[in-house]
Amino acid sequence: MEETEKVEIMNFDQKGYLKDGEELYKVGKKMAALADKVAEEGYDAVFLLGVGGTWDELMQLEYMMNKFGDKDLECYLIHAAEYNVSGHKRMTEKSVVLTASDSGTTPEILQAITTMKEQGVRVFAMTKPEGPIGQAAGAENCVQMASDHGSGGCEGGYYLADCFGLRLLYHRGCFPKYDAFIEQTRGIWSDLLDIRKRFEPKAEEIAKKYALAPYTMFIGGGALWGETILFAMCILEEMQWKRTRYVTSADFFHGTLELVEPGVPVILFKGEDEYRALDNRVEAFLKSGVTGDDDVVVIDTAEYAIEGLDPEFRVIVSPWILTVLVTDRVSRYYETVTKHNLQYRRYYHQFDY
Amino acid sequence: MEETEKVEIMNFDQKGYLKDGEELYKVGKKMAALADKVAEEGYDAVFLLGVGGTWDELMQLEYMMNKFGDKDLECYLIHAAEYNVSGHKRMTEKSVVLTASDSGTTPEILQAITTMKEQGVRVFAMTKPEGPIGQAAGAENCVQMASDHGSGGCEGGYYLADCFGLRLLYHRGCFPKYDAFIEQTRGIWSDLLDIRKRFEPKAEEIAKKYALAPYTMFIGGGALWGETILFAMCILEEMQWKRTRYVTSADFFHGTLELVEPGVPVILFKGEDEYRALDNRVEAFLKSGVTGDDDVVVIDTAEYAIEGLDPEFRVIVSPWILTVLVTDRVSRYYETVTKHNLQYRRYYHQFDY
Repeated sequence: MEETEKVEIMNFDQKGYLKDGEELYKVGKKMAALADKVAEEGYDAVFLLGVGGTWDELMQLEYMMNKFGDKDLECYLIHAAEYNVSGHKRMTEKSVVLTASDSGTTPEILQAITTMKEQGVRVFAMTKPEGPIGQAAGAENCVQMASDHGSGGCEGGYYLADCFGLRLLYHRGCFPKYDAFIEQTRGIWSDLLDIRKRFEPKAEEIAKKYALAPYTMFIGGGALWGETILFAMCILEEMQWKRTRYVTSADFFHGTLELVEPGVPVILFKGEDEYRALDNRVEAFLKSGVTGDDDVVVIDTAEYAIEGLDPEFRVIVSPWILTVLVTDRVSRYYETVTKHNLQYRRYYHQFDY
Repeated sequence: MEETEKVEIMNFDQKGYLKDGEELYKVGKKMAALADKVAEEGYDAVFLLGVGGTWDELMQLEYMMNKFGDKDLECYLIHAAEYNVSGHKRMTEKSVVLTASDSGTTPEILQAITTMKEQGVRVFAMTKPEGPIGQAAGAENCVQMASDHGSGGCEGGYYLADCFGLRLLYHRGCFPKYDAFIEQTRGIWSDLLDIRKRFEPKAEEIAKKYALAPYTMFIGGGALWGETILFAMCILEEMQWKRTRYVTSADFFHGTLELVEPGVPVILFKGEDEYRALDNRVEAFLKSGVTGDDDVVVIDTAEYAIEGLDPEFRVIVSPWILTVLVTDRVSRYYETVTKHNLQYRRYYHQFDY
């Protein structure tokens, strides 16, 4: 531990982060206990409810539920603003909803879960129990996310959401190694510190080269697609006012490739699931020389080891690793280059709309 | 008819278009007959299979199937490149697939339907029966799209796909007025000519003002979301090499709004379904004055009448109208301003990848 802490991570509280990790393990147990109760009571479908960043964050769990789940498991990622105008035809009083809100006040989420609760739907929220969303969900259905000492990434939220979803899968016989997964990731926070340290120079290099670029392309897919959107939209658009284009590695060849030309930064996130074949195809094209574009960066989660983790669990932690690399580290270095404080907003929460 | 043809539509064969419309009515009957057979045989789920532009085009039908369908109807829009690496856990030998390929050769689609056919899945294709995709699907399962006299929009494909999907809904008791819909839209091609004529000056104005802009934002949702992607990605990115940002009216407030500033063209597509409330919210924000951006264009399908069409059918034709306005008309005027031929590609079909 002391060895680990010797190397600096810019603007990062390493001790606090490890303490948060210990707390997350405990809070994860609470998430699993909620899932145990749901599994015992029964459910017809699982809904993951978000808006903006929380929608992006829950996408990785939708991916896992579909990947590991049996064919009769229904799991839907729904957008609160869309739900509020259209509802969802598969939601019944036997359904279960997982949502999240850091602020505890997100208006679209609050409206959605109020409707859902009126219909008798069970709603669980990763939020502070005393906030409006916590109150609407019911304090007994809330799990407070660990206090955020240092990380600007979403790995804590990913962990907790996964504890809930994977535990449901466990009870369906679809994820029998749940306990092994929880124990093997108990010390992952230390690995994620090491990964940060290793990535620090690359994060700085990416920011120095590209933070001032007028337009940057981000390509991802599979388990990393939600994090790709989150970084490009909720970090770079919202917090840095940068023009970005995010596209899946599947769709890249159907339009967006024509925008690649010398001087356009293209950042490819390579994952560790079946979609990697599509990422590889994009990488081969970008590096073939036909575009003349030298500003291609590949960030491959497979290059970052997690000690003692079974290979079959890598896909689950791949978005945790990516969020550490980009939403936490790259964004901090962007801030130092753009001199644009990540907290500034032009309009969001500044005006009613 | 003669009256109608007096006004010019730039680079457009009005007579040929009306002839295509007559042909579409006949081909639509064939689509309905295929759906009749499927309904009689039974099916467990409907898959709409596309890649790039065809994926975007089929999205409107996914929307209709979910909107009108009973809660037990399963309809999934799937991306061929993704299917080829991940499959789909809900597809069985009782499933039915609808796909499309203008060229008849799209490699991702060909690979996907070859796998599907091997698994005994019924595949129907809007494509030429003699092409590789037509051969793989089986000529008896193919419907050739009407020859394209004039229109650069997707309304013909939308019409045929809808004939198939809405007919399935009809047999489920979810769209009892199928026949009325088909008869009421029999003459829609003439209305769509009138709509073109009315929109011609606006298409020219949009192109003159914004075709050279370095970055343009497109906002849409609901039944229009697929067409929004199609225009921004498959037309402006692929065929005009323009940098675009497309975002749903639901997600706009969660990041992208921060990019709105004076000089950034923002084009909002307003639809006629329950998502219109979200479009209205975006419009109110854009016109509130807080952004200082005067380059806001609203294209509202509700402003374009279709004679003799029941109000309940408007949602179905709303993407037909939008594709006429933008994918057909605006793109033609972009070409005249950018001097960039819509047929040029930097990389697509130029290189193996």
